[in-house]
Amino acid sequence: MENIFTDEYFMKKALQEAEIAFEKDEIPVGAVIVVNNTVIARTHNLTELLHDVTAHAEMQAITSAANFLGGKYLKGCTLYVTLEPCQMCAGALYWSQISKIVFGASDEKRGYKTLGTQIHPKTEVISGVLEKECSALMTSFFQKKR
Amino acid sequence: MENIFTDEYFMKKALQEAEIAFEKDEIPVGAVIVVNNTVIARTHNLTELLHDVTAHAEMQAITSAANFLGGKYLKGCTLYVTLEPCQMCAGALYWSQISKIVFGASDEKRGYKTLGTQIHPKTEVISGVLEKECSALMTSFFQKKR
Repeated sequence: MENIFTDEYFMKKALQEAEIAFEKDEIPVGAVIVVNNTVIARTHNLTELLHDVTAHAEMQAITSAANFLGGKYLKGCTLYVTLEPCQMCAGALYWSQISKIVFGASDEKRGYKTLGTQIHPKTEVISGVLEKECSALMTSFFQKKR
Repeated sequence: MENIFTDEYFMKKALQEAEIAFEKDEIPVGAVIVVNNTVIARTHNLTELLHDVTAHAEMQAITSAANFLGGKYLKGCTLYVTLEPCQMCAGALYWSQISKIVFGASDEKRGYKTLGTQIHPKTEVISGVLEKECSALMTSFFQKKR
């Protein structure tokens, strides 16, 4: 039997979160954290609603997953996020020692890769999963804003 | 009349917060955010208590100050923190556009300067204020842990 729990499967869940952010007029970034094929955190960007620059989807997902697990380290967990993490989020992911990061669209300007933020040496990173869909949502948002 | 509101004055407030963290068996880092010589946020590291890697003193201070001000940008504010910010905290400070960062002890291993994290171009940084006192608290903590 084919395994339905692919990276695309969970990235779609993150995209659904990004769509909720879009509908709230937030920059549309969504995230889920998965352990053993189970989603333990689902979050979306809330910086405008909360008036808080720290309320990126990834930051909330890290806090939420750690609450669920009862410990601060996210070993064995995978983060799916629609946009490449920024310096802040990559820095938080470093501390969490998360096992895997999967992101959709790249962020050439503010992404951690461009800015050289250090990721934990034990963390695997996969990029470009559902990249077109993730990018399209961002493009629509900023077109709407113009 | 002499101005009592010096960087040392406010760093002492941050040090008091760091001491509270020490007493809770948290890595002793404390922070305050000041606007117009008024402290609007005072926080200390709570990563152990909250099981949350994002609960650094600076992150809580940013959220707390933004709540107080009712907006997400911290223009006109100064952060006093006993230890050089890490990648995560420096990344958050970038987004906040805070006007000034004053830190005590340097963190040669995990500090944002070593790791090359980008700070907002409009943010002024001052280091080494009450450096000995800030460092001594960290040293005592890790000696106790051995």
